[in-house]
Amino acid sequence: MGLDNGVRLLRFIFLPLFLFACHARSTPVQRSTYIVHMDKSHMPKAFASHHHWYSSTVDSIKSVEPTSNGHQSTPKLVYTYDNTFHGFSALLSRDELETLKKYPGFVSAYADRTVTLDTTHTFEFLSLNPVTGLWPASDYGRDVIVGVIDTGVWPESASYKDDGMTKVPARWKGICEEGQEFNSSLCNLKLIGARYFNKGVIAANPNITISMNSARDTEGHGTHTSSTVAGNYVEGASYFGYAQGTARGVAPRARVAMYKVIFDEGRYASDVLAGMDQAVADGVDVISISMGFDEVPLYEDPIAIASFGAMEKGVLVSSSAGNAGPFLGQLHNGIPWVLTVAAGSVDRRFAGTLTLGNGLTITGWTMLPARASVVNLPLIYNKTLSACNSTKLLSEVPFGILICDKTQSFDTQLEHVSLSNAAAGIFISDDPTIFEFSVFYYPGVVISSKDASAVIKYVASSNETTATMKFQQTIVETKPAPVAASYTSRGPAPSYPGILKPDVMAPGTLILAAWIPDGPASSIGSNIFLSSDYNMISGTSMACPHASGIAALLKGAHPKWSPAAIRSAMMTTANPYDNTLDQIRDNGLALEIASPLAMGAGQVDPNRALDPGLIYDATPQDYVNLLCSTNFTKNQILTITRSNSYSCKNPSSDLNYPSFIALYANKTRKMVQKFQRTVTNVGDGASTYEAKVTAPKGSVVTVSPEKLVFEKKYEKQSYSLTIRYMSDKNMTVTFGSIIWVEDSGKHIVRSPIVVSPVINVW
Amino acid sequence: MGLDNGVRLLRFIFLPLFLFACHARSTPVQRSTYIVHMDKSHMPKAFASHHHWYSSTVDSIKSVEPTSNGHQSTPKLVYTYDNTFHGFSALLSRDELETLKKYPGFVSAYADRTVTLDTTHTFEFLSLNPVTGLWPASDYGRDVIVGVIDTGVWPESASYKDDGMTKVPARWKGICEEGQEFNSSLCNLKLIGARYFNKGVIAANPNITISMNSARDTEGHGTHTSSTVAGNYVEGASYFGYAQGTARGVAPRARVAMYKVIFDEGRYASDVLAGMDQAVADGVDVISISMGFDEVPLYEDPIAIASFGAMEKGVLVSSSAGNAGPFLGQLHNGIPWVLTVAAGSVDRRFAGTLTLGNGLTITGWTMLPARASVVNLPLIYNKTLSACNSTKLLSEVPFGILICDKTQSFDTQLEHVSLSNAAAGIFISDDPTIFEFSVFYYPGVVISSKDASAVIKYVASSNETTATMKFQQTIVETKPAPVAASYTSRGPAPSYPGILKPDVMAPGTLILAAWIPDGPASSIGSNIFLSSDYNMISGTSMACPHASGIAALLKGAHPKWSPAAIRSAMMTTANPYDNTLDQIRDNGLALEIASPLAMGAGQVDPNRALDPGLIYDATPQDYVNLLCSTNFTKNQILTITRSNSYSCKNPSSDLNYPSFIALYANKTRKMVQKFQRTVTNVGDGASTYEAKVTAPKGSVVTVSPEKLVFEKKYEKQSYSLTIRYMSDKNMTVTFGSIIWVEDSGKHIVRSPIVVSPVINVW
Repeated sequence: MGLDNGVRLLRFIFLPLFLFACHARSTPVQRSTYIVHMDKSHMPKAFASHHHWYSSTVDSIKSVEPTSNGHQSTPKLVYTYDNTFHGFSALLSRDELETLKKYPGFVSAYADRTVTLDTTHTFEFLSLNPVTGLWPASDYGRDVIVGVIDTGVWPESASYKDDGMTKVPARWKGICEEGQEFNSSLCNLKLIGARYFNKGVIAANPNITISMNSARDTEGHGTHTSSTVAGNYVEGASYFGYAQGTARGVAPRARVAMYKVIFDEGRYASDVLAGMDQAVADGVDVISISMGFDEVPLYEDPIAIASFGAMEKGVLVSSSAGNAGPFLGQLHNGIPWVLTVAAGSVDRRFAGTLTLGNGLTITGWTMLPARASVVNLPLIYNKTLSACNSTKLLSEVPFGILICDKTQSFDTQLEHVSLSNAAAGIFISDDPTIFEFSVFYYPGVVISSKDASAVIKYVASSNETTATMKFQQTIVETKPAPVAASYTSRGPAPSYPGILKPDVMAPGTLILAAWIPDGPASSIGSNIFLSSDYNMISGTSMACPHASGIAALLKGAHPKWSPAAIRSAMMTTANPYDNTLDQIRDNGLALEIASPLAMGAGQVDPNRALDPGLIYDATPQDYVNLLCSTNFTKNQILTITRSNSYSCKNPSSDLNYPSFIALYANKTRKMVQKFQRTVTNVGDGASTYEAKVTAPKGSVVTVSPEKLVFEKKYEKQSYSLTIRYMSDKNMTVTFGSIIWVEDSGKHIVRSPIVVSPVINVW
Repeated sequence: MGLDNGVRLLRFIFLPLFLFACHARSTPVQRSTYIVHMDKSHMPKAFASHHHWYSSTVDSIKSVEPTSNGHQSTPKLVYTYDNTFHGFSALLSRDELETLKKYPGFVSAYADRTVTLDTTHTFEFLSLNPVTGLWPASDYGRDVIVGVIDTGVWPESASYKDDGMTKVPARWKGICEEGQEFNSSLCNLKLIGARYFNKGVIAANPNITISMNSARDTEGHGTHTSSTVAGNYVEGASYFGYAQGTARGVAPRARVAMYKVIFDEGRYASDVLAGMDQAVADGVDVISISMGFDEVPLYEDPIAIASFGAMEKGVLVSSSAGNAGPFLGQLHNGIPWVLTVAAGSVDRRFAGTLTLGNGLTITGWTMLPARASVVNLPLIYNKTLSACNSTKLLSEVPFGILICDKTQSFDTQLEHVSLSNAAAGIFISDDPTIFEFSVFYYPGVVISSKDASAVIKYVASSNETTATMKFQQTIVETKPAPVAASYTSRGPAPSYPGILKPDVMAPGTLILAAWIPDGPASSIGSNIFLSSDYNMISGTSMACPHASGIAALLKGAHPKWSPAAIRSAMMTTANPYDNTLDQIRDNGLALEIASPLAMGAGQVDPNRALDPGLIYDATPQDYVNLLCSTNFTKNQILTITRSNSYSCKNPSSDLNYPSFIALYANKTRKMVQKFQRTVTNVGDGASTYEAKVTAPKGSVVTVSPEKLVFEKKYEKQSYSLTIRYMSDKNMTVTFGSIIWVEDSGKHIVRSPIVVSPVINVW
C-alpha cells in the first residue's frame, strides 16, 4: 500500500517516509495485528454493545491461552469497527487467532497490512464556473461533507480559512480531536472535523513514539488532497512562481473532515479501516481516499470492505487508481462499489524561455523553483562533454550554458550538470513523461530535438555564442489536453477484472494545492530543500480529490442519488476527447489513443454530469449478487457484506455498470459476451434514446432494443449488449463505445466498451 | 574610481563589472583622452559658440601636427563642456597636448581616468511621515528634480511608475534620449529624463562595442540609487522575502533624471563630466552621485570640478564617501562644496531562527534568499569537522545541520559547508560586520558565542539531537541603530583635510531598492544566481541617495536655500545619538563610539533639518578664497573656478563650514587653531542662542561670544572658536561639539569638533 503520487516525486518530496523505514522497528513479540470480521447477528444479548462483545471476545482468548512471556503477555484489542463493517482488530498470536476462528460469529480474519498513497487552473480546465452548471446548481457544495482519509491536515493553511462559509450542517456528528500541536479550536466552518487513528501503528510497533500524535499533517499529502477537494479561495498561491493565481478546491464551499490514518511511523490497514468506519459514523457524504492496497483480494482489501458499508449508507467512496502505469493490470482500488479515478494532464505547461544571442527564442520546459539569473552567458557545446554524464569531464566546464545531447536521460544529465561548474543546462528530450513531474533543481530548460537543431546551428555559427534563460513561466490552454498520465495505473483490475476500471480520469499531473509550510516542497542545488505553502505534485492521489469534489457537488445538487447514480453520471458524461477535439492520448504510450483501461470513460465533465439523462443504478444487493458469482467462500463474501440478510440466490457477474469489458485469455478463439443493463430516466419527463455503437476493432457489438422510450421521469428501461470478439495472441486491447443519444439531442449517455486480455499480475 | 557599494558584494553582485575587464581593450594608438579646461574669456568673437571654438582648436592642432599613422590619424574632440566648467575632452597625443597648452585660453589638462561606484523601512527609521515634518512641508519633493549620475536606469521598474505624479515642472530642459532598448516613450512624470554618455569609453577603446548603448542600466546600481532617492510607492517589494513591504524613495514625489556615465565597457571621467555638465544644463535641483575618484587632487577630480559649476548655479551635489573604511584618510569626494555622505546601519535585522529539539529557540542572522526546509534534522558537532574549512573532511558529513566553531571566518566556513553534504550550517561569530552584507548562499544561521554555548550543551546532552531552522524573517527596531558602517570611508579627506569630511551619515547598510530584473541579485548553492526586482545591498552608494532625497525635500521646502545652506541644515540637525540614546557606535571599531571622521555630524534627521534655526552659508567666492589659500597654481584653481572674475585677494582656509577639524602632524607639541564663523538666523524672528561646548578630550575650546542675539530673520551673527590642543604620537582622534541652543529650546544647532592627525595616504 502506498501514497499515489508520482514515483519520481517520492524521491525528493517524501523523504520523511523513506527515512521512516530506518526508525520503524519490528515488534519483538510473536503477536501481530489481525483484522477480524464478525457476524453481529451472533452477538449474545447479554452484551450492551458490539464493543463489549468484541472486547470480551479478546479477553476470553486471553483466559483460554495465557502466555508465559511477561512482555506483551496478552492479546490486545486495537479497534472495534461497527459502521462500515462489524468486527475488530487485535494483537493476536497465530494460536490465539486459531482459537478465535472457532468462536461463534467469527467471519474472517487477515493480517494487518500497510498502504500506498496515490494533487489549481483545474477548475477552469474542467469548465467549472459561477454562471452555469454544477457550481451554482450545488451552491458550490455548501451542504456536503467530504471525509478525507489521508496523512492529516495543516489546519492553519489559508485553504482552510472559513471565510464565506455558513453554519455546519446539523447532521454532522464528527469532532475536532485534540492532539499534539492540534487544539480542538483549530477546526472551523470549513474544516469541520479532524481525527487520527494510529492504534494499528502502535500495535505493530509497541515501542514506537508517534512523532505527531494528532491529525496534523507532517507529510503534506493530506493537506494537498483535502484542499483539492474543497479548499477555500486563496489569492496569490503559487509553486515558486509557477501556476500563480487564486487557488480553490473543486467544491469550494463543501466541508472537510480529515481522518488521519497515515503516520511517519507506519500506515496500517487497521488504522485505515478505523478512519473510514468513523467517517461514516460521523455523517460524511463522500469519502476521498487517495491511497490503495496492492495485490489483495477484495475480501482482504480494507478499502473494499469499508467502502461496502459506506456505499450501503449512501456514502460514495472516491479512490485513486494508483501510480503503477503504464503497464496493464497494475491498478488498485478496482472495487466494483467505489469510484476509481485515473490521472490525466491539465492544459497548462510550465515553461522556461531560451533566447539565443541571435534573437531566436525557444520555449522549453523548466520547473526550477527560483528566479535564476542566466543572462547572456556563453553556450558550451562539444561532443566530449555533451553526454553530460561524467562528473569528471564536467568538472572542467567553464561558467556558461552547457548543451547536453539526447543520449542520456534528463534525470541523469540534470544531476551531472548540477554538480558541475556550468551555470545552466540545455537538455534535449522528446519524452513527454518528463513534463509530468516538478523535479528541476538546477537552472536549465528541456527543449525538443526540433528546437535543438536551431540551437546547435547557432552554436556552430560563431565562437562566441550566448544565450539567456527565463524561468517561472506558466502557459495555459496548451494542446493536446488532457492526456492520460504515463503513471496512472491501468486496468483490468486485478482484484475484479470483470468490471472495467478505472472509471473516469481527472486532472492529476502537476496539481497546485495546499502544503505543509515546513516540509520540503522542492529542492535547488544538490542539497537545498525548499518549503512552500502550496505545492505542485502529480499522481492519481491528486486526480482522486478532483473526482471527489465533483461527486460532492453532484451530491449537493442531487441529495437523493445513490453512490452508483453519482458514479454513473460522472462516467456516462465523461469526455473521451481532448481540447483538439481528437481522442484523448496516452502519455505512457507515446501519445497513442488512450484506452479505457487507462482513463475509464474519459475525462470527468462536471457540468454535464449534473444532468446525465440516464443513470445506471445499483443497489447493495446487486453488488452482493456479483460477489456471489465469484469463487469467494461464504465467509469471504460475508467479510465484505457482513450481513446474512443479503441473499446469494441470484449470483450474477453482470453488474448494472455504465461500462463494458470483455476479457479473453491468451489463446485465439471466437468469444461472445452478453451484458444486461437497466437505465433510469433522470431527465425531465418523456424522452426517447437511440443507441449508437462504435464496436472495438475486430468485434461486433449488437444492442437490443436499439431504441429506449421513456414516458416519465424515473422510469426504467433495459437493454442487452452483446460483444462478439476474437481473443488474440498479441494481447491487443481494443475499444469502442455505446452512446444512447436522446432524440432532442439534449442528453448523450456514453459507455466505453473494452475487449482486453486477462492480465495475471498476482 | 569605483562603485561605492560594499566590497564583499562586488564579488557576487557585480560580476559583470569584473568580467568587463576581460573584454576591454587598450587602444592601439598613442593618443589618449585628455580633459582640457579653457578660459572662455579668451574665446575669439568670431566663434558662434564655445563648441565651435573648442572644435576649431582641436582641428587646428591636427593641422599643426599631422601624424603619418593612417589609423586614428588625427586628434578628435570627445565632448565639449560649458555648464559646470568650460572646456572639452579630446583624444590627443602627448605632443598635441603640449601644442594645445600654448594656445590662448588654455587653463589646464589632465588625462581621463576611471571611476569607483559607492541602497527601504529607512523612511521610518528616518522618521519621515505624512503627518508632520519634511514630507508634508515639501509635498514629498513634488517640484524638485534630482539628477542621478550613475549606471543608468531600468525604466520599466515599478518604482518608476508615475501614478500620483503631476505635470513636469516647466523649467525642465532635459530629454529622454533614444538608444538601444530605450525608447523615448519610456520616460514619464516620474522618470523625466534619461541620457547616456560614453564617448569617453569609446575614445579610450576605439574598437569596443558598447553592449547597451543607451541609458538602460545593465548593472542595477543606478536603478537602485535613483529609486532610493525618489522611487514611487511599490507594494509587496522584498529581497527574496526579506524586508517585505511597500518600497518608496526618500522623496517619493520628486522627479528623477538619469545620466548614465558608467558602462560595462568602462567608466571614464570625461563621461562623468559630460553627464554632470548636462544635468546642470537640463535644470536639475540636486545631483546625486554615488561614486568617486580616488587619490586625485581637487583640480583633477572631475566631481570636484563639475560640482563647483553646479554649486555656482545653486545645484547641491550629494556624493558618497566611499567604501574604504575603517582605516582613516581613505575617503573620496572630500570636496568642500559638495555634501559627502557616510553610511550607517538601519534598525532592522534579517533573521533566521534556530529551534533545538529541546524547544530552545535562538534568533540568528541569515539572509538565505529562499525558504529552505531545514526541519528536525540531526545536529552534527565534532571537533574533527567543526573548523569547517576542509572540503575533504566535510565530504563525509551526513545530511544534517553542521555546527562550525568560531575558529575560521564565516565566509570560509559557508563556502565549505555549501560544498559538503550537510543540509545546513550553524556558524558562530561575534563579528558585527558580517551583518552588513547579504551574501548567504547556503542554508544556515550565524549565532553569537553566547547562544552557541546553549547549542553545544544541548548537543552534548544526547546522541540524537535535532534542530529546525526558519528563514526570511525581518526584525525591526533593533538596537543599537544606527551604527557607522565598517566599510564607510573615513576622513580626514586626502584631497582637502582642512574641512571635516564626511558631512553626515545616512542609511547605507542593506538597503532595499529597485534592481534590474535580469541581473544577479543573489545566489544560492555554489553556482546558481538569482534575480529579483528589488535588491538589498550595502555601501555609501546607498547612503548618498538617502541624503540626496532629503536634500531634494529641503529644496522643495526652501527653494531659495543655497547648496551650503541645505548642507548646513542637514549637518547641524544631524543626530550623534542612536536609538538607545547613547552615542552612535562604529561597527568598524568594535562598536567603540564613532568619531565624526566616520559619520560627520551624525545621522541625518530630515524633519529637524526642515527647521534648523541657524545656517552656516557659503558663497562661491568663499570657496575660491579657500582654494586661494592652498598651494594650487593659478591654473589649477582656474581649472575648478574657471572664471577670472573671482578674486584671490582674500585667501582663507577658514571656510564658513558647520564643522571644525584641527589637524596635527606626528610630533608632540601644543597647538592652537582659531576658526571664524557666521551664522544666519533662519528661524522665525528674534532669538537668542547660547553656546554649549564639549571639548575633545585633552583640548580646550573657547567660543566668543558665547551668546548670539538675533533681532530678526535672516540676520547674521559671527563668532570665533579656538581649539587649544596637543598633537599626539599615538595619532589619537578626539572629538567634541559646539551646540548653539536657542533660549526657547526650539532650535539646537550642533557642529562636531575633531582633533585629528594628518593622514598621508597618497
